Amino acid sequence: MKALYFDGSLTLGERPMPQPQPGEALIRMRMAGICNTDIEITRGYMGFTGILGHEFVGEVVECDDPGWLGKRVVGEINLGCGECDYCRQNLQRHCPNRTVLGIFNKDGAMAEFLTLPVDNLYEIPASVPDREAVFTEPLAAACEIAEQLHLPPGLPTLVIGDGKLGLLIVQVLKQFGCDVTLLGRHSEKLALAESLSIRTTASADDLPAQAFDLVVEATGAPKAFETAIAKTRPRGRLVLKSTYAGGIQTDLAPLVIHEIELIGSRCGPFRPALRLLAEKRVEVMRMIHAEFPLSDGLAAFEAAQKTGVLKVLIRNDESNR
Amino acid sequence: MKALYFDGSLTLGERPMPQPQPGEALIRMRMAGICNTDIEITRGYMGFTGILGHEFVGEVVECDDPGWLGKRVVGEINLGCGECDYCRQNLQRHCPNRTVLGIFNKDGAMAEFLTLPVDNLYEIPASVPDREAVFTEPLAAACEIAEQLHLPPGLPTLVIGDGKLGLLIVQVLKQFGCDVTLLGRHSEKLALAESLSIRTTASADDLPAQAFDLVVEATGAPKAFETAIAKTRPRGRLVLKSTYAGGIQTDLAPLVIHEIELIGSRCGPFRPALRLLAEKRVEVMRMIHAEFPLSDGLAAFEAAQKTGVLKVLIRNDESNR
Repeated sequence: MKALYFDGSLTLGERPMPQPQPGEALIRMRMAGICNTDIEITRGYMGFTGILGHEFVGEVVECDDPGWLGKRVVGEINLGCGECDYCRQNLQRHCPNRTVLGIFNKDGAMAEFLTLPVDNLYEIPASVPDREAVFTEPLAAACEIAEQLHLPPGLPTLVIGDGKLGLLIVQVLKQFGCDVTLLGRHSEKLALAESLSIRTTASADDLPAQAFDLVVEATGAPKAFETAIAKTRPRGRLVLKSTYAGGIQTDLAPLVIHEIELIGSRCGPFRPALRLLAEKRVEVMRMIHAEFPLSDGLAAFEAAQKTGVLKVLIRNDESNR
Repeated sequence: MKALYFDGSLTLGERPMPQPQPGEALIRMRMAGICNTDIEITRGYMGFTGILGHEFVGEVVECDDPGWLGKRVVGEINLGCGECDYCRQNLQRHCPNRTVLGIFNKDGAMAEFLTLPVDNLYEIPASVPDREAVFTEPLAAACEIAEQLHLPPGLPTLVIGDGKLGLLIVQVLKQFGCDVTLLGRHSEKLALAESLSIRTTASADDLPAQAFDLVVEATGAPKAFETAIAKTRPRGRLVLKSTYAGGIQTDLAPLVIHEIELIGSRCGPFRPALRLLAEKRVEVMRMIHAEFPLSDGLAAFEAAQKTGVLKVLIRNDESNR
C-alpha cells in the first residue's frame, strides 16, 4: 500500500499492508491531518521510524466484531498495555509501556490502511463530515485542559499562540465558560478568532501583568514561556502545551515567588471532542488551509511547513476495497 | 541601636531606632535565625538594602493595644496593603504592594528592635522556648505545601534536599500522613532524619523513576530539578521550593508528556506551624548548629555559610529596656 514513511527522511512509497493484532481492527484511511508533531518528527523528534500520522478519519474494513465493519471512526492514539495502574484508570495515554500511533513504535495513519485496537475507536456521528472529524484528536488535546483543571465560570484566561492548537483551545475554553483572550502574531488567524467572538491582541504589552487566573502556552516557542509566567496572576495556573525542542533557558523564581501552578498537558479525551463537533460548537472547517491526495503527501508536508498555514489535510483517493 | 545592615556589604553597626507606623508594634528582638535567603541577599538577591532578618522571636515593648505589651511573639513577614483582593483573602503574602521583613523595603529583625503590624503577630505558647519558636517562619514555609495541595494519607512522597528547609518539610509531610523519602547528600543530616523515622537515601539512582506522586525540590541547586522531574510519576505533582539564582537550563518536555503539575511554593501560615511546635511534633532543636550574640553577627553569618551547617541563631544580649 502507499504510505508516507519516515526513516531519517520522508518518502512516499509502497509499504506492506499492516496486519491487525488480536483485538485490532484494520482501517482504511479516509483522511489524515498534519500536526506540528509530525513536522517535528521529520526533524528528529522522538527518534521515530515508521509511517507518520496520528490525526485521521477511517473506515473499519476488518474486525473480529462484525458490528464495527463499515463504521466511520476516529481513534485514540495511545495504545496501553491494558494491565497497569494507568490503563486500569483509563489513562492509557500514560501507560509506561504504551505505543503511540505514528509517533512511537506504531505505524501511523498517513497510508492507505492502518490498524488500531477496537477499544481505541469511536464511531463518528453521521452529522460530522470527514473534514471536521479529522480534528477530533487535536480538539481532544484542547479538551484535556478541562479534564485536568477546574474551570470556574468567567475565569480570566489568556491563550498564547494562534496556531492550530491555540485556535482550538480558545474555542474549547470559551465553550466551557472561560473569559478568553487570545494573544497571537498572525493577523488572519486573529481575525478568525475575532469572528468567533474571541477577544484577541497581537501585543503582549497591551495585556496587564499578573492578571490572568489561567494562562495556556501553545506557541511551541520558548520565548513565549516567560510571557506566560509574567501574565499569570499569583496563585494562578499556567498550562503548558508546548514541548520546546532543545530545552529552555528560563527563570523559574517568579513561579515560586508567586506560587504559580505549571501544568503539563498533552493528549485528551475523544468523547467530549466528538460531542463538540456533533453539536457544531467549534469551528474547524475555516482552519483548513489545503487538502492533498495521499499520492501528493510530500507536497502536503511542504505546504504545512509554510508560515501562517493552518491545517493541511491528506485524503486517501487510492483504495476503496 | 545595634543592627546587621546590608547595603552591598554586610556590616554590624549603629542604626536609628525604628519608629512604629500606625498599627505597628515596637518589638525587642530576642532571637533571630539565619536563612539561606539572608545569605542570598548578601550576594545581591532582591537588591535589598537595609537590616537583614525575617526569622525571629521578640517581645512587644510598645503598642497601641496594651494587651500585646510584654507578649513574646513571632510575626508573619509579608506586610500587605490591606486593601487589595489578596489582602482581603488573607493572602498578604501575595499583595502586589507588599513589603517583606528584611527582604523587601522593610528593615528586618537582626537588630535590637524591629517593628511589625500587630496584625502580623502571633503570641508564642509558653511551652515553646525561643530556640524552637524561632523556627516558626521556615516551618510555616514547610506547612505551605499542605496549604496548597491535597495530601491523601500514605501519599508516596520524595523530598530532595537535606538542608534546613528540607528537614522541616520531611517532618511536616510525615505529620500530615505522607509516606516520605528524603534524598540528600550529607550523612549527618540524613542521620538526623533517620533518627526521626524518615526513610533516607544519598543516591538518586537507588530510587525508582516516575514513582512518586509528590516530589518536593528543596535543594536550591538547579541540577536537582531534573532529578525531581524524573522521579515524579505521570500526572504527579512536583513542588518547587527552590529559587535558582541566575535561572535554569532545562527540558520541560517530560513535564508536558507526563502531564506533571509543577507548583511554586513560598511562605506559609504561622498558626499550624506554631501548633506543631507547641505539640512537640517537630524536632528543631537538633537542627541548631550554633548561637551567637548580635554583637558577633558577622561571625554568625560566616558560620552559617559553611558546608554542612544547619541553623545558626543570633540572640540579643544587648537591650533589656
